Amino acid sequence: MGRGIGYTAVGDSFDGYMLIKEATKGVASNGKPFLTLILRDATGEIDAKLWDASKEDETVFIPEQIVRLSGEVNQFRGRAQLKIKSVRLAQPTDGVRVSDFVEKAPVEREILSERLTEVIFEMENPVMQRIVRAFITKYQEGILTYPAASKNHHEYVSGLAHHIVSMLAIARELHNLYPELNKDLLYAGIILHDLGKLKELSGVVTTSYTTEGKLLGHIPMMVEEIGQMAKELQMEGEEEVLILQHVVLSHHGKAEWGSPKPPLVREAEILHFIDLIDAKMNMLNRALDKVKPGEFTERLFAMDNRAFYKPLFEEK
Amino acid sequence: MGRGIGYTAVGDSFDGYMLIKEATKGVASNGKPFLTLILRDATGEIDAKLWDASKEDETVFIPEQIVRLSGEVNQFRGRAQLKIKSVRLAQPTDGVRVSDFVEKAPVEREILSERLTEVIFEMENPVMQRIVRAFITKYQEGILTYPAASKNHHEYVSGLAHHIVSMLAIARELHNLYPELNKDLLYAGIILHDLGKLKELSGVVTTSYTTEGKLLGHIPMMVEEIGQMAKELQMEGEEEVLILQHVVLSHHGKAEWGSPKPPLVREAEILHFIDLIDAKMNMLNRALDKVKPGEFTERLFAMDNRAFYKPLFEEK
Amino acid sequence: MGRGIGYTAVGDSFDGYMLIKEATKGVASNGKPFLTLILRDATGEIDAKLWDASKEDETVFIPEQIVRLSGEVNQFRGRAQLKIKSVRLAQPTDGVRVSDFVEKAPVEREILSERLTEVIFEMENPVMQRIVRAFITKYQEGILTYPAASKNHHEYVSGLAHHIVSMLAIARELHNLYPELNKDLLYAGIILHDLGKLKELSGVVTTSYTTEGKLLGHIPMMVEEIGQMAKELQMEGEEEVLILQHVVLSHHGKAEWGSPKPPLVREAEILHFIDLIDAKMNMLNRALDKVKPGEFTERLFAMDNRAFYKPLFEEK
Amino acid sequence: MGRGIGYTAVGDSFDGYMLIKEATKGVASNGKPFLTLILRDATGEIDAKLWDASKEDETVFIPEQIVRLSGEVNQFRGRAQLKIKSVRLAQPTDGVRVSDFVEKAPVEREILSERLTEVIFEMENPVMQRIVRAFITKYQEGILTYPAASKNHHEYVSGLAHHIVSMLAIARELHNLYPELNKDLLYAGIILHDLGKLKELSGVVTTSYTTEGKLLGHIPMMVEEIGQMAKELQMEGEEEVLILQHVVLSHHGKAEWGSPKPPLVREAEILHFIDLIDAKMNMLNRALDKVKPGEFTERLFAMDNRAFYKPLFEEK
Amino acid sequence: MGRGIGYTAVGDSFDGYMLIKEATKGVASNGKPFLTLILRDATGEIDAKLWDASKEDETVFIPEQIVRLSGEVNQFRGRAQLKIKSVRLAQPTDGVRVSDFVEKAPVEREILSERLTEVIFEMENPVMQRIVRAFITKYQEGILTYPAASKNHHEYVSGLAHHIVSMLAIARELHNLYPELNKDLLYAGIILHDLGKLKELSGVVTTSYTTEGKLLGHIPMMVEEIGQMAKELQMEGEEEVLILQHVVLSHHGKAEWGSPKPPLVREAEILHFIDLIDAKMNMLNRALDKVKPGEFTERLFAMDNRAFYKPLFEEK
Amino acid sequence: MGRGIGYTAVGDSFDGYMLIKEATKGVASNGKPFLTLILRDATGEIDAKLWDASKEDETVFIPEQIVRLSGEVNQFRGRAQLKIKSVRLAQPTDGVRVSDFVEKAPVEREILSERLTEVIFEMENPVMQRIVRAFITKYQEGILTYPAASKNHHEYVSGLAHHIVSMLAIARELHNLYPELNKDLLYAGIILHDLGKLKELSGVVTTSYTTEGKLLGHIPMMVEEIGQMAKELQMEGEEEVLILQHVVLSHHGKAEWGSPKPPLVREAEILHFIDLIDAKMNMLNRALDKVKPGEFTERLFAMDNRAFYKPLFEEK
Repeated sequence: MGRGIGYTAVGDSFDGYMLIKEATKGVASNGKPFLTLILRDATGEIDAKLWDASKEDETVFIPEQIVRLSGEVNQFRGRAQLKIKSVRLAQPTDGVRVSDFVEKAPVEREILSERLTEVIFEMENPVMQRIVRAFITKYQEGILTYPAASKNHHEYVSGLAHHIVSMLAIARELHNLYPELNKDLLYAGIILHDLGKLKELSGVVTTSYTTEGKLLGHIPMMVEEIGQMAKELQMEGEEEVLILQHVVLSHHGKAEWGSPKPPLVREAEILHFIDLIDAKMNMLNRALDKVKPGEFTERLFAMDNRAFYKPLFEEK
Repeated sequence: MGRGIGYTAVGDSFDGYMLIKEATKGVASNGKPFLTLILRDATGEIDAKLWDASKEDETVFIPEQIVRLSGEVNQFRGRAQLKIKSVRLAQPTDGVRVSDFVEKAPVEREILSERLTEVIFEMENPVMQRIVRAFITKYQEGILTYPAASKNHHEYVSGLAHHIVSMLAIARELHNLYPELNKDLLYAGIILHDLGKLKELSGVVTTSYTTEGKLLGHIPMMVEEIGQMAKELQMEGEEEVLILQHVVLSHHGKAEWGSPKPPLVREAEILHFIDLIDAKMNMLNRALDKVKPGEFTERLFAMDNRAFYKPLFEEK
Repeated sequence: MGRGIGYTAVGDSFDGYMLIKEATKGVASNGKPFLTLILRDATGEIDAKLWDASKEDETVFIPEQIVRLSGEVNQFRGRAQLKIKSVRLAQPTDGVRVSDFVEKAPVEREILSERLTEVIFEMENPVMQRIVRAFITKYQEGILTYPAASKNHHEYVSGLAHHIVSMLAIARELHNLYPELNKDLLYAGIILHDLGKLKELSGVVTTSYTTEGKLLGHIPMMVEEIGQMAKELQMEGEEEVLILQHVVLSHHGKAEWGSPKPPLVREAEILHFIDLIDAKMNMLNRALDKVKPGEFTERLFAMDNRAFYKPLFEEK
Repeated sequence: MGRGIGYTAVGDSFDGYMLIKEATKGVASNGKPFLTLILRDATGEIDAKLWDASKEDETVFIPEQIVRLSGEVNQFRGRAQLKIKSVRLAQPTDGVRVSDFVEKAPVEREILSERLTEVIFEMENPVMQRIVRAFITKYQEGILTYPAASKNHHEYVSGLAHHIVSMLAIARELHNLYPELNKDLLYAGIILHDLGKLKELSGVVTTSYTTEGKLLGHIPMMVEEIGQMAKELQMEGEEEVLILQHVVLSHHGKAEWGSPKPPLVREAEILHFIDLIDAKMNMLNRALDKVKPGEFTERLFAMDNRAFYKPLFEEK
Repeated sequence: MGRGIGYTAVGDSFDGYMLIKEATKGVASNGKPFLTLILRDATGEIDAKLWDASKEDETVFIPEQIVRLSGEVNQFRGRAQLKIKSVRLAQPTDGVRVSDFVEKAPVEREILSERLTEVIFEMENPVMQRIVRAFITKYQEGILTYPAASKNHHEYVSGLAHHIVSMLAIARELHNLYPELNKDLLYAGIILHDLGKLKELSGVVTTSYTTEGKLLGHIPMMVEEIGQMAKELQMEGEEEVLILQHVVLSHHGKAEWGSPKPPLVREAEILHFIDLIDAKMNMLNRALDKVKPGEFTERLFAMDNRAFYKPLFEEK
Repeated sequence: MGRGIGYTAVGDSFDGYMLIKEATKGVASNGKPFLTLILRDATGEIDAKLWDASKEDETVFIPEQIVRLSGEVNQFRGRAQLKIKSVRLAQPTDGVRVSDFVEKAPVEREILSERLTEVIFEMENPVMQRIVRAFITKYQEGILTYPAASKNHHEYVSGLAHHIVSMLAIARELHNLYPELNKDLLYAGIILHDLGKLKELSGVVTTSYTTEGKLLGHIPMMVEEIGQMAKELQMEGEEEVLILQHVVLSHHGKAEWGSPKPPLVREAEILHFIDLIDAKMNMLNRALDKVKPGEFTERLFAMDNRAFYKPLFEEK
């Protein structure tokens, strides 16, 4: 059945399974209804049009369904678009699962889980360790499956754990170079800093914002949740709780970026930079992978709309 | 014993009681220690120097002590300064209390309390009513005594309640004019919006910021506390809780002013403006009271450093 | 003949009268000319295409003409569009008037006029009263028919008077709560603040900007006109004139929003907020009316592009 | 009697006449009153202290009086300060006049007046010519004596006319190089652009802002006055009037710099730059005159706080 | 063969030669390949579609080729578009050259060259004169043929020299009016300020940015090149070299506009304004030429998106 | 002779050697000259006043001289100030050297030198290696002695090398974690990025800005110098040279921070963050060292004026 959609070019035909990510109804200029689908497999995404869609089509081809389809890759206003020739829902006998069609972290879930466990063992401050352990236990499944964001960086299955584990590795090395840094605080802060996303984002496969996420945002939600967890663990009033709340609250660095307080503790300041470095490396590596030496990447919206250059000497 | 310090002019002598607000040690150019005191009574504040301070003086003349002193009002670099001739700690027999020396809201505490009670009776939404009632009960004393801020507006005893009650009155009228507004949400939001200041500010008399206040700020602290209160009242998950948290979170209007989310609910938007109007009226009225028609006020830092004009026709 | 265009959905047919708001010529990919029309009735607006338009069509179907047409509501790039089947100009015998096709203030013109009169009677300062009365007399028709803006808020017939009268109601209540406010100055400032729009905007039905409006703007034009009116009334040099000019000049609040001076008089500051509250309530109510509880509105450009949430408990 | 104050150095004695620009009372640490005077002659300014000032001194040594004094130039917190030894009011028999003590434009008043007249003769558009002529006639004395600003640039007697005449010279040359520019519009715009300062500033010698200037500013005041002048000349409705108002309104270039409309006419845009060039040359030349080649000037507040370098090769 | 493309209107047919500026491949909704061409002649530019393009077409119709074509001017989404009926490559026998199809400065190359030579003769400072002469010699061809920018202003053949020569004329006049200005420094700075564009831009006809231009920009490249030239001329360490580098470095005026240092030398400050005036006059004149008196130009992106008004009295 | 000045408190007497960093003349209110000295030893800095300074004193007590003095530490306007009792120039026989009185990096010069050498050995790209080696050779002494800045961070002897070596260590670890990073480019970029400071700053002991530094800044100067070095090494045109220039040019991250181009190469982006982390750790550690757990540091100007908190649990 061939390669994934991410490897097709304009003019290629395609025959295979894909997951419906979004489906929108429209009416064509001839007055007939059609469906605009956003389809994906583990290698990429493509837009598609299903012309002359019947009422039944509208109820059947909905998000999170897998479809078997064949068609041809055309170009429409500068973007690839799949012209569907035939399409049907996948059957149980087809042996395909939703999880086959989503991008995953390049590191296995088990390894990510192991690394988290190791780090918690390494922690010495009992208050921080207990809080972190309680959160890991409470949100075990979410931490290991959620993306770190709905787009831009680590926006894939296990993206959140991948981001955390990469940040922990930087933290370990920075602590070696600057022993003044409180390793436990860095570790705890990194593990907790984005857990509010488990409530801010709607899910693993088709990720949008929850109402709660839109009205409060992951930062204040997590600050609150740390407070409640401390209460449950009868650790109210411990300074570690306050400092962890501050680290989470301030990790976007500036008020205009969503942190009502800027970092006012050394480790909070450094965590902000570790977060930036890992997010940027993730975006840069994936964008540069798509171009050849001597070329510029597409403009990266989340990096101030810059196009990055890949030097020719990278070939050497 | 005469008028308050707020009514003295350069050249006047002063003899009376005042409260020590701040005390700082210094060493004069002749090598001798001195104390710089900030003194206040209910009518105003003044700086004072106690030259040749003894070790004992340093331990005796400390913040929140009342002193009896006489001296002369001089001018030092454009500001009034009291040259102390004699000073002693107030005795129990002097019959003076700290509360005599602090500025108070122009409305009696009992009346403020009554108005709050009335408003809660008026509320119909049971979730909001119960949450508000629980907070009023929990923080009864603080709500009725705290200032609304450490400076700028309503920075006096009962300032917080005064600010709340004034805002409630505006809300009632706006609800009459725009019946689409949810009155209960406005009322509950107004009562709760600044309660985080009870933890952000250090106290009623000598008001500074607590460590918790500096690291988290009153907004995230109050969002958390509403969540915990809802839990205690077994109201977790009620939409009213989320909306109240949002109203508190967004009441500064913009991220750069400390609200990580801007108002996204009608009443949150309007509450932000009610807050601004009452704070500005408080600042403007007090500044304009000090000048004559035809003059400009001093520059008001919290109002973009503007000097306001009092028209001559105000005399007519 | 059925409901207005504002109540149709994609797929519906439509048969009725509408007013042409804009008409633009185009050439289709087949080389034939067509007309893009923006049509409206009292319930809303819709785009329409008249394909294969003749030369005569181009001269006949022009702005401010009423047409009788039938067609079907399709969707084009996410927006509703009327596919015209037949169209003709309305005849005198059809008994339709331009005024039937434009949105109007929800309050009758007579009532708005009455409220203005009442307020002027209530004023005590003779200078302000005379100036306001002179403007009301001079621009009677315009004040009662013009919109308050070409888009965003109160952009309907009598919108200007509706906005003024709503603001006056808020002012009355704020004056009750803060008796320090000069009621006459608030009233006069509110009535005058936007009258420059009578020269800045081109008219009631199809509202665009005049050349004068583009080069000077309604604020400096109105400041000038107050000066000239004072001259005509032989009130030059009265302080009230200067203060009214200042209130008009500063009512946008900041230089970057079009006020070369910020409010420097108490009532000017408060008027700015009354203006904001009434404009925002107008936009919010109309946007929230279109969505169900639990939904967000479309993004509101004039409110920092925010989408507002309508809580579920609004249903209770 | 010696050189002017501008040529004295720390340690020099001074004996001569000066004009009192400001006088402020103070009380010394010994409780005795003193006067802080700002004194000036045509060569510069200096601060002075008159210790042990009597009640009579306070009524006698007031702004705009000329005094004869002797003293010594000391340094106080990095600034020169005159230590007064003796001081008395100037007598009629001393033969000194206020005009001897103020800085004047480097071009004679008669020559400035002549240049203005020449330019008006050169104008061909009758509407603009008549308006300009009417203003020159109305404000003859003010135009030829006022400074262009209270500080920063052309802040000396006849500074306004000097600034206008310099700008007219640039305009003439730019018109030669870019004949598309409408010379009459440039000339008229330049002559009128700052005339509002005649009402915004309090006077020639001790220049502060009038109440009208603070509440409206010179730009809206001048826009209004052009409208009134057009009315008096029965030229209402002529497009030239509108364009001249626009040129004046927009000459600060941006809303945040005080122009509610940016330049939207070619000559308005160019006038804004001519204004900037002449103001900057005035500031730069005067600052660079005070330093030697190879040095930097003091920081110039009105030029973004920059310190400018004077190259060594300027000596060659 | 008729008029240039710049004089055609929608509906006109066109038959003539044009230069291909850009060529992009696409696939139509019917699956067939097409070419989107941007074509130009000396009078303007137009988009065109070549439907059903063969493989050979793709290799033949490439940038900088001249084609002979006939077609019709249609409108597509509000912009003119040429519907190609027939097209072929130009033959040597057609007698057309690339230089016939590009816009040129309104002043002849020879005259521009002469003016530059005159100015160099006029210079007296030997260091600046030698450096300028060396650059003129080194880049003779580029200076006289390059545009001053890839778009916005002077974006035509010889645009760079045209811009330089216009600026030199302004500089001469400003030096006459302000003799304090160092004429040699202004002249040298103007000639050098944009020469870095010879390396930043890819060429005369189809102007894009070089990799070097994207990564360094013309300003740092020129600063470096002045340093190297000084070395070659054995003038290292002369202050004139440093000052010229500063003038080039600072000529964009502010860090956020690309100058890491703001102007800190008088002539650098003035050069910045001369640059602005000439660029703006170039944009304004060309935009205003396209509209009639009483109309506004299209919005000018490089001038803060303003639309400029052409007064009616320009007709008189 | 006792402890260094950094360990004295107000009221202590001091007797020892110090280095004069700055000396300024003044005239006291009694008309007598005095000298304000800024003195330092390896432990800190203090202001001092030498009253009644003779003409000889003014010529003798100048910057970079060592003095022996005794006095008492007083407080003046909230800052410590040394009241000098006796002072004399140090004699050769005193056995003190300038280098004893300046703060030094906490790592020995030899070790810093060794680390640099190791890193260069590790590099594999011959172009980058040769350029780096050439610079190390050319500026050997400066690299190992200069501070990294005149204030804020690494502002001590060998601060530049200390900063480089710390950054190299971070780079090594990040390269381990993200093997996509080009290690040679990171290493070369780090070593070169701030070498322009050798020309921008005046020297090791009393560090101010050179004229060249003020007019060009270290970034453009270093870009130029890399170009010249490449020329000398006959490596002109190698892409590595361009990329290294870009890395240096962009290392401040944004135009408004002094980089006319933002980072457009992956390693340039990461180097910017490594630079920030090391500078911030340096500032944070030194500020936090001065306070006790539970306290806030003084406000750090170069870190957005924040005061940082040192948690109490740091004591555990």
